[in-house]
Amino acid sequence: MTNQLSLAQGREYLAIPGPSVMPDAVLQAMHRPSPNIYDGELIEMMPALLQDLRRVARTDHSVAIYIANGHGTWEAALSNVIAPGETVLAPASGRFTHGWAEMAEGIGAKVEVIDFGMSSPWDIERIADTLRADTSHRIKAILAVHVDTSTSIRNDVPALRALLDDLDHPALLMADCIASLGCDRFEMDAWGVDVTVTACQKGLMTPAGMGFVFFNEKAQAKRATMPRGSQYWDWQPRANPELFYQYFNGTAPTHHLYGLRAALDLIHAEGIEHVWARHECLANAIWAACEVWSEGQALQFNVADRAHRSHAVTALRLTEGRGTPLRQFTESQLGLTLGIGLGMEDWDSCFRLGHMGHVNAQMVMAMLGGVETAMAALDIPRGRGALEAAAATLIT
Amino acid sequence: MTNQLSLAQGREYLAIPGPSVMPDAVLQAMHRPSPNIYDGELIEMMPALLQDLRRVARTDHSVAIYIANGHGTWEAALSNVIAPGETVLAPASGRFTHGWAEMAEGIGAKVEVIDFGMSSPWDIERIADTLRADTSHRIKAILAVHVDTSTSIRNDVPALRALLDDLDHPALLMADCIASLGCDRFEMDAWGVDVTVTACQKGLMTPAGMGFVFFNEKAQAKRATMPRGSQYWDWQPRANPELFYQYFNGTAPTHHLYGLRAALDLIHAEGIEHVWARHECLANAIWAACEVWSEGQALQFNVADRAHRSHAVTALRLTEGRGTPLRQFTESQLGLTLGIGLGMEDWDSCFRLGHMGHVNAQMVMAMLGGVETAMAALDIPRGRGALEAAAATLIT
Amino acid sequence: MTNQLSLAQGREYLAIPGPSVMPDAVLQAMHRPSPNIYDGELIEMMPALLQDLRRVARTDHSVAIYIANGHGTWEAALSNVIAPGETVLAPASGRFTHGWAEMAEGIGAKVEVIDFGMSSPWDIERIADTLRADTSHRIKAILAVHVDTSTSIRNDVPALRALLDDLDHPALLMADCIASLGCDRFEMDAWGVDVTVTACQKGLMTPAGMGFVFFNEKAQAKRATMPRGSQYWDWQPRANPELFYQYFNGTAPTHHLYGLRAALDLIHAEGIEHVWARHECLANAIWAACEVWSEGQALQFNVADRAHRSHAVTALRLTEGRGTPLRQFTESQLGLTLGIGLGMEDWDSCFRLGHMGHVNAQMVMAMLGGVETAMAALDIPRGRGALEAAAATLIT
Amino acid sequence: MTNQLSLAQGREYLAIPGPSVMPDAVLQAMHRPSPNIYDGELIEMMPALLQDLRRVARTDHSVAIYIANGHGTWEAALSNVIAPGETVLAPASGRFTHGWAEMAEGIGAKVEVIDFGMSSPWDIERIADTLRADTSHRIKAILAVHVDTSTSIRNDVPALRALLDDLDHPALLMADCIASLGCDRFEMDAWGVDVTVTACQKGLMTPAGMGFVFFNEKAQAKRATMPRGSQYWDWQPRANPELFYQYFNGTAPTHHLYGLRAALDLIHAEGIEHVWARHECLANAIWAACEVWSEGQALQFNVADRAHRSHAVTALRLTEGRGTPLRQFTESQLGLTLGIGLGMEDWDSCFRLGHMGHVNAQMVMAMLGGVETAMAALDIPRGRGALEAAAATLIT
Repeated sequence: MTNQLSLAQGREYLAIPGPSVMPDAVLQAMHRPSPNIYDGELIEMMPALLQDLRRVARTDHSVAIYIANGHGTWEAALSNVIAPGETVLAPASGRFTHGWAEMAEGIGAKVEVIDFGMSSPWDIERIADTLRADTSHRIKAILAVHVDTSTSIRNDVPALRALLDDLDHPALLMADCIASLGCDRFEMDAWGVDVTVTACQKGLMTPAGMGFVFFNEKAQAKRATMPRGSQYWDWQPRANPELFYQYFNGTAPTHHLYGLRAALDLIHAEGIEHVWARHECLANAIWAACEVWSEGQALQFNVADRAHRSHAVTALRLTEGRGTPLRQFTESQLGLTLGIGLGMEDWDSCFRLGHMGHVNAQMVMAMLGGVETAMAALDIPRGRGALEAAAATLIT
Repeated sequence: MTNQLSLAQGREYLAIPGPSVMPDAVLQAMHRPSPNIYDGELIEMMPALLQDLRRVARTDHSVAIYIANGHGTWEAALSNVIAPGETVLAPASGRFTHGWAEMAEGIGAKVEVIDFGMSSPWDIERIADTLRADTSHRIKAILAVHVDTSTSIRNDVPALRALLDDLDHPALLMADCIASLGCDRFEMDAWGVDVTVTACQKGLMTPAGMGFVFFNEKAQAKRATMPRGSQYWDWQPRANPELFYQYFNGTAPTHHLYGLRAALDLIHAEGIEHVWARHECLANAIWAACEVWSEGQALQFNVADRAHRSHAVTALRLTEGRGTPLRQFTESQLGLTLGIGLGMEDWDSCFRLGHMGHVNAQMVMAMLGGVETAMAALDIPRGRGALEAAAATLIT
Repeated sequence: MTNQLSLAQGREYLAIPGPSVMPDAVLQAMHRPSPNIYDGELIEMMPALLQDLRRVARTDHSVAIYIANGHGTWEAALSNVIAPGETVLAPASGRFTHGWAEMAEGIGAKVEVIDFGMSSPWDIERIADTLRADTSHRIKAILAVHVDTSTSIRNDVPALRALLDDLDHPALLMADCIASLGCDRFEMDAWGVDVTVTACQKGLMTPAGMGFVFFNEKAQAKRATMPRGSQYWDWQPRANPELFYQYFNGTAPTHHLYGLRAALDLIHAEGIEHVWARHECLANAIWAACEVWSEGQALQFNVADRAHRSHAVTALRLTEGRGTPLRQFTESQLGLTLGIGLGMEDWDSCFRLGHMGHVNAQMVMAMLGGVETAMAALDIPRGRGALEAAAATLIT
Repeated sequence: MTNQLSLAQGREYLAIPGPSVMPDAVLQAMHRPSPNIYDGELIEMMPALLQDLRRVARTDHSVAIYIANGHGTWEAALSNVIAPGETVLAPASGRFTHGWAEMAEGIGAKVEVIDFGMSSPWDIERIADTLRADTSHRIKAILAVHVDTSTSIRNDVPALRALLDDLDHPALLMADCIASLGCDRFEMDAWGVDVTVTACQKGLMTPAGMGFVFFNEKAQAKRATMPRGSQYWDWQPRANPELFYQYFNGTAPTHHLYGLRAALDLIHAEGIEHVWARHECLANAIWAACEVWSEGQALQFNVADRAHRSHAVTALRLTEGRGTPLRQFTESQLGLTLGIGLGMEDWDSCFRLGHMGHVNAQMVMAMLGGVETAMAALDIPRGRGALEAAAATLIT
C-alpha cells in the first residue's frame, strides 16, 4: 500500500466530530465587510437570532452568547451559579465531563466525580445513591454531558431529571450539549434542564469561535445569590442587554453572527424535528455498516448499546493499533479525514466518525466507502456487504 | 419509497459530466475586486497562464482564449480555417460531433458525417475508406471529438493521425477535448493534432464561461489563406497580442482568469501525468462497481469496451425507463445529482456519472454509494458486492 | 515626490470606466458550487432574470444572452441582421464606433463612417444629409454608440430616431449601451431603438464575461430574411429556447448568472429612475470639481458641453503629458486607479474617471480627493475649492 | 436636506474606530472548509503565526491567544497576575480604563482610579504622587490604556515605564493596545511593558472574535505565585502548549486563524515601521482638514495636543448636538459610516473618525470629503480649504 497513487486530490471531506462541514450559505454570509456595531442591521437582527437559537434548544428561557469555544461556556456557566467552595457532581461517561469538572475546580468548586469509564453511559442508580446520601443538599449542580464527543456516548438526561424530581433534590441540572445540539434530540424545557451550554461549530454549522449558555429562572435565582465574580462571564447583561455591546461584553463577533443567522435559517427551513430524524437515520446507516464489518472480529463499537450512542458521532476500535493507520490511509489516499481516538488509552486503535450538522446520505456513503477501502488496503478482517447494509437502512 | 424522510440536507454533490465540482481555491480566487485591465498584475500574469495552459494540452504551439462556452470554441476554430464552401468530415460517436457539424454548416461549410451511432467509437477503417476516396483532398478538416460527453465514448485520436499520415491526406486534424482535457490523456503535439478546442468547466475546474483554441503552424498556414471573416473569432491577435485587450478582442474575462490561474496551480502541483492516472484509477473503480451491478441484467454500460470509455464520464443504461427515477431519488433523497441521459432515444432509461476534474476517491465512493442506495430503493436487480469491488480497485 | 512613503496600502479603489466596482452581493452570489444545468433552480430562475434585464433596458421585447464581452455582442447583433454586402452607417464620436464598424466589415458588410472626431457628439444634420441621399435605402442599419467610453461623449439617440422617422428611412437603429446601461437614462422602446447591445461589467455590476442583445420585432423581421449564418450568434433560439441550453448555445455561464441576479436585485431595489438620478448627481459633483480645477488652465474636459457628457465616465485632458504621471501617482501613492486616455493621440495627457454602477458619494469624494492630491503632488496649476464645489452639488 | 436623493448606493465605507475595514485577502482566507484540528496544516502554521504576531507587538516574549474580544483579554490578563484582594492602579484617560478597572473589581481586585477626564492624557506627575505614596508596594499592577478609543487619547507608555524605574516600583506595567496595535508605534520589549492585551478587529484587520495577551518573564513570575484560578484564562498552557488544543483551551478559532495569517502577511509585507508611518501620515492629513474646519468655531478636537492624539482614531466635537445629524447624513446620503461619540456626556455633539488598519489615502479623502459634504448640508460654519489642506499633507 506504500508508494501508491494518491486519490485524494479533489474535494476533501472532513468527517471528524467537530468542527463539522460548514455549509456554503454560512461561509458566504461571513464573507462580507464589517458592519456598524452601534446602529443598523446587526443590532436589529439580534432578537430574531436569539429566538431562533432558543428554538434549536427547545427553550423559552434566556440565552447568553459568548465569544468562546465550548470550554469557555463551561466556565461561563459555572461562574454564574457556582461559588467558590460549593460542590458539583460530575457523572462522567468520557473525557469531557472530566474537563468540565477541572474547570469547576479552577473556579474554586469542590467536585465529586462518578466515573463510568470510557464506554458506559450513566448508571442512574449509582447517581441516585450519591444524591440520596446528600441529605444536606451540599451538591449544588450536576454537570451532565449529554453526548460525549470522545466516546460517542449519549446519556439519558430526562432520566436524570426524573431522579432529581423523585428525590426532590434542588441541584441545578446543567447540560453540555456541545456535541448534540442540532443533531440528537434535546429539549431543554420539556426535559427540565436548568442550564445548557453549547458551541457553534458542530450541529450549529458555524465556524468555531462562539458559544451559548441557556438558563432558566431557577438558574437565574441561584445567580442572584452569588458573590461578585467574573464580569466577563456574567450572563445577566448578555441575556438582557440595554445596549448592544452588552450582548457580548464588548465588541460583537460580527462575522460569526452572520454565519449563525445563515445556519439557523437552514435548520429551521428543514425543521428541527426533521434535522433530528435525519441524524438518526444517517447514524443507523453507519451502524449497520459497522455491524457488518464487526463480523470480522477486528472492529467494534465503543458503545455496545445503540440506545446509548449519539447520532452525531460514532467511536470505533480496531485491533492492534490499526485506528491510526486507517485514518492516515483515508486522509492521504482518499481525501477523507476521520476523527482520532480521543482520550482512549489505546487511542491508536481507535477512530471516530463525525456525522453532525451539514451531513447527508451521499456524505455518509463517502465516509463508509472510505472506511471499506481503507480496511481493504490494510487487510483488516471484516464482514462482507457493509455498504449494502448501510444503503438498505437509508431507504426504510 | 414515497413520503420518505429526505436525507439530502448537507453538502450537495454534483456528479454530472460538466460543469464539474469547483475547487475552493478557484472560487476563492474569483471572489475579488475587478482588476485594472490596462496595467498591473492581470496583464503581467498572462504569459505564465498561457504557458501553463499549453502544458495541460501538451503543446508548444499557440493558444487563443475566448469568452465562450465549448460551442463557441467550435465556431471559433472553424471560422479560422474553414471557408464557406469547403468540406469537413465529421466521424460521429455521439451527440456532440453532430453539434459541431451543424456549427460548420452555419458558417457555410459542407459537412460529411460518418455516423457510428451512440455506443460505438470511430471505426478507423470506415474513415479510411472515405479519406482514400477523397483523392482531390476536398476534405479540409476532420472534426474529431476525443471524448463525447453524451455517450462517454473515447475515440482513438492517435490512430486517426496515423491514418492521415499513412494516406498522406492534408486535412487538418481538429480535436474537441472539451470533456477530456485534464482528465483523459491527451497530447496535442505528440499526437499530431492541428487544432484543439476545449472549455474551462470540466477538467479545467473553472466556472463555465471561457474556452480555448490551441493551434499549430499547419493550422495557422491554412488561416493565412482564408478570406476576411469574423473578427471576433480571429485567433491571430488573440494568440499574438500587442496590447492586452487583443487577447480577448475587448474586455478580459477578469475573474475567470484568476479562477483559471488557481485551477492550473492545482493541476501542475499534482502533475498532469498524475492527474490522468488518478482519473484512470477512479474510472476503474466506477466500472468495477457497475460490472457487478450489471450481473443483475438491469444495468449496462453504454460503451461495452473499456478501451473506448472515457475516464471522465460513464454513460449507463437501466431497463424500463429507470434512469430518471434513479436520478430523482439520488438528488431528492441523498444530495447527489447525476447526469441525465443526453441525446439517447431511451434517455429516460439512461444516466451518466461525471468523474472529471476535482474528484477524489471519497467522492467516487459517495457517487457509487448513492447509486447502490437508489437501486435498492427502486428494487432494481443487481449483483452484490459492487462497492467492495470498487474499493478493491482503489488500492491496487 | 519620489521616494515618498506610499499611502496606498488599504482598500484599493478601481475608478476606471469599466470594469466597475463589483458589489459584495454579486461576488458572494458567485462564490458557490456549480449548479445542475439540466434541472432545478438555475433553469427556474431564468424567466424572472430576463424580465428584470429587460426592465433595465426599458423594453418589452426580446433579449439574448451571450457568453461574450461587448465586442462579442457587436458581432452577435450584426450577424443576425446584416448580410454580407449590405451597408451600415457608423456615425463615430470616439473609438468604439470604429471598432464596431470593423466588426461589421469582418462579417462582410460595407461600412460608411461619419467621423465626428474624439470630442464631438453626433451632428444630426450631417447624418441627415447622408440618410437623405440614401434614397435607395442602401443603408440597412445605423451603428449608434450611445456613450463612447473613450471620449465620454453621450449621443442623442432619440434625436436620431426622430430623424429616421422624419425621413421615413427604414434602417435599423442599433444602439451600443455598453457604457451607459444602468447609468445614463436609456429607454429602448420609448426611444424606438431596434437592437440594443450591452455587456455586464459596467452599469450591470457583474464581472466581465457576459453580454446581451435586445431586439424588437422590426429587427426580428430583418433576421427572418437573412441567409444562413453563424449558428452561435443566432439570437432566435437564445431568445425563445425550448431547452435550457439553447439560451446559451451550449453550457450556461453558471456563476455569472447568479452574479447578474444579485446585481439586478440591487438595481431594482433602488429603482432604475433612482439609479439614473444618482449617476447624474454624482456626475454633476465630478464636473463641478473639474470646472474649478480647470481655472488653472491645465485641466480641460474632453467634451465641452455638459449636455453631451455621459454620467458614467468623464474624459479629461491635462497639459504637457501629465495624465499618465497623475494616474501613476494616484495608483502607487493613494490606492486609487484611474482610467487611461484611450484612443487619444495625446493619450499621455489624458485620463478618465469611471463613475458607473456601484458608486456612491463617498467614492466620488475619494476619487476627487485623489485627483486633488495628485495635482498638488505634480504641482499642476488649478483653481481652489474644487472639492468644496463638488460637495455643494451633492446636497442640492 | 430632507427628502433628498440618497447617494449612498455603492460600496459602503465603515470608518468607525473598530471594527476596521477587513482586507479582501483576510475575508478570502476565511472562506474555506473547516480544517482538521488534530493534525495537518492548521497545527503546523502556529509557530510562524505566533512569531509574526510577536513581531507586530515588538516582543520576543510569550503570547496567548484567546477566543474573546478585547474585554475578554482584559479579564484574561488580570486573572493571571492579580489575586483577589490585590490592588491595581488605573490612570484613566477615557472610558475604557474604567471598563478594565471594573473587570478587575469583578475578579476581586481593589482598584485605585486616577481620573484624567475625557480629554486629557495621563499626567505623569499625578501618577508619580500615587506611586511614591505606595511605599509598601500595595499596587501590583498599572492598567495602562495606550490609546483610548472613545477619546482618541494616546498616552505616553515609555514615560510611565521610566517613572516606575525611577521609583523602583515593582508594579507590573499592563498595557491595553487594543486600539493602537498595528497603528500607533508600540514596542513592548523596548518600552518595558510586562503585559500587553489586544484584539484582532482593529489594526490587526481580522473580523472581531479573537484577542491576544503578551507577557514577559516578570509577569510570568507573578503568575507563578498565584492561587488556583480560572483555568480558561490561564495563559500558561496557551503560551506553551504540548498539544494543539491547549493553545485555545479547547477548539481552535479555525477560520479566524486563517484570517489572521492573511492579515499578518499584509502587515509584514509592508513592514511594521511603514505601517506606523502610514498611519501617522494619514492622521496628519485628517488633522489638517479638521484644523481648517475648526476655524469656523463649530468643530473642535477632543484632544487639543497633537502629541497626545492617536494615529488610529480622531474624536471630534461639534456645537449644538450636531454630531449625530452629521453621522446620519454621511451614512444615509453618502455611504459613509462614522463613529458615534462614545462615553461623552454630550455624545450627540461628538463623532469619531476611525483610521486604523486597512486604510489608505483615497479612503481618508473619502472620509474627509464626506464630512465636508455633511457640514455643508447641515450648514455648519467651517473654514475653507480643509480638503486641500489634507491633500497637501499627503504629499510631503
